[in-house]
Amino acid sequence: MRIILDTDPGIDDSLAILYLSAQPDVDIVAVGSVHGNVPAPVAAANALRVLDVAGLDDVPVAVGAHRPLAQELRTAEFVHGDDGLGGHAGPPSPRAVVDCSAAEQLVRLARANPGELSVLALGPLTNIALAVLLEPRLPELLESLVVLGGALGVPGNVTAHAEANIWHDPEAADLVFDTGFDNLTLVSLDVTETARADSAWLDSLAQVASPRAQFASALLDHYAAFYSNMFGVRVATMHDPLAAALLCDPSLATYREVAVSVEVHGTYTRGQLVSDWRSIADDSHIESEAGRGRRPVRAAAAVDAEEFLTRLFEALK
Amino acid sequence: MRIILDTDPGIDDSLAILYLSAQPDVDIVAVGSVHGNVPAPVAAANALRVLDVAGLDDVPVAVGAHRPLAQELRTAEFVHGDDGLGGHAGPPSPRAVVDCSAAEQLVRLARANPGELSVLALGPLTNIALAVLLEPRLPELLESLVVLGGALGVPGNVTAHAEANIWHDPEAADLVFDTGFDNLTLVSLDVTETARADSAWLDSLAQVASPRAQFASALLDHYAAFYSNMFGVRVATMHDPLAAALLCDPSLATYREVAVSVEVHGTYTRGQLVSDWRSIADDSHIESEAGRGRRPVRAAAAVDAEEFLTRLFEALK
Repeated sequence: MRIILDTDPGIDDSLAILYLSAQPDVDIVAVGSVHGNVPAPVAAANALRVLDVAGLDDVPVAVGAHRPLAQELRTAEFVHGDDGLGGHAGPPSPRAVVDCSAAEQLVRLARANPGELSVLALGPLTNIALAVLLEPRLPELLESLVVLGGALGVPGNVTAHAEANIWHDPEAADLVFDTGFDNLTLVSLDVTETARADSAWLDSLAQVASPRAQFASALLDHYAAFYSNMFGVRVATMHDPLAAALLCDPSLATYREVAVSVEVHGTYTRGQLVSDWRSIADDSHIESEAGRGRRPVRAAAAVDAEEFLTRLFEALK
Repeated sequence: MRIILDTDPGIDDSLAILYLSAQPDVDIVAVGSVHGNVPAPVAAANALRVLDVAGLDDVPVAVGAHRPLAQELRTAEFVHGDDGLGGHAGPPSPRAVVDCSAAEQLVRLARANPGELSVLALGPLTNIALAVLLEPRLPELLESLVVLGGALGVPGNVTAHAEANIWHDPEAADLVFDTGFDNLTLVSLDVTETARADSAWLDSLAQVASPRAQFASALLDHYAAFYSNMFGVRVATMHDPLAAALLCDPSLATYREVAVSVEVHGTYTRGQLVSDWRSIADDSHIESEAGRGRRPVRAAAAVDAEEFLTRLFEALK
């Protein structure tokens, strides 16, 4: 499997890179950064660092969109630390970013390898939206697209209704869902919140002496401290690594088909991922309704969290 | 208990009136009609008819708001029949409506009986909003307010996210929730949908020969046919009677305190009742958030549906 990773490292993004690097049948062809957890240039510098740790120092990294399509830049250093890596970024990678934007890189690679590449989008969907605008044939050129984002039937994690990746660029997300990818897997908060490493898991990893395990543990110390502060218990929610794991092995989850839209106009609901889950749907008199006329996405519904956490532990060792 | 009923009969509104009429300790002081299931004048005429059936032919009925505050009139004859009573309205009541609007009637009675009256709002909240605008002291003048509306944590019944009473006048509902009633009970779709009479219950009622039981059964035949069409099984969801029952006996349900707002600007979420159910709430950087700064309402969380249906059966016999 050959993938293009779109990401905003970010602690759990970094763990996803380490996860992918441990899969023998996965080839990361290129990485694009995006604003989100941190600004896009910081995310790119961090991607280079983590690829170095992962032994993938030949993977090109392009800086992606510096801001969302239709709102100001907002980042989340209060979660991921000022450097995006919980204070453990260390010196910069000796490598430099490539000389094009992430969306250009994505479009060029998709055109050169039609039907062969899968995209794993772990941040706001700004780059993916730009790529669709640059190349409307993108859905046919890609093998598949896995999107981490949204909260279906559960509260959001930025507002009461919005999940961070969608909230960071609601217009881009809605554009992507409106594009009609025929192989789009959605991994949303209702599923990723079930993938939580507990204190024992974190302690076991901390006892592994390998450089990658020590690096991962250092990041997770910061991350778990954030969650401890919020939940009152030391855990780490593995959003991005779970999306990576489902790209590699879809059989870790069950799925349902849902047509989704993003609310972009709500006072309280801007950034909410909306879909129609009514058992009845007698709304033919309503002009605008969630998901109407859209190709459904395949949304992860339930995941084997224990098996996933076992695999993640193996990958981070 | 002395109550003012605000209602848009409507089949389940009519059953709520019959329910209340059977409670020995309940005195319906006045009824106001409102647009919603049917236009407000039709609702008033139906209220008079049902009060006659209930033996309450001395209760004054005022016609209420003919339209929502900020959108065009929309009604729901596709649920309740062209006459609002499933084709069983029959001849008009010999009585006439009173010569003032429902909001005026409400304000006058509240001023004349401070702290003594409870309002049961079974339709869109237009009249209640008007009454608040006419008399800002309304919260102190009323004993309590019970509102049937919204969908908390479940899909809506008009759109994917909006419940009918809120959807019929989102601005009025938001005004009422913003007013700060200190004794406001909310009975929302997540609870009322658990109060479903099944086919056996409906058949038993149909075998009762009393005029009120026969009237109720005729309405329910229409209502259950509508639900059969949607759900594929013959049931009747007792939204309005449940709200009436909880006004009379709050102990039939458990409650939680929630601060709520109504989304009025969403493309997909207009009319959605929003509240913050996150276990964490680190959103101090978001200016506008659901329910922020508002006095919480007491929302019914779970109801003893079996006991309620037993009591409803007794009341309709």
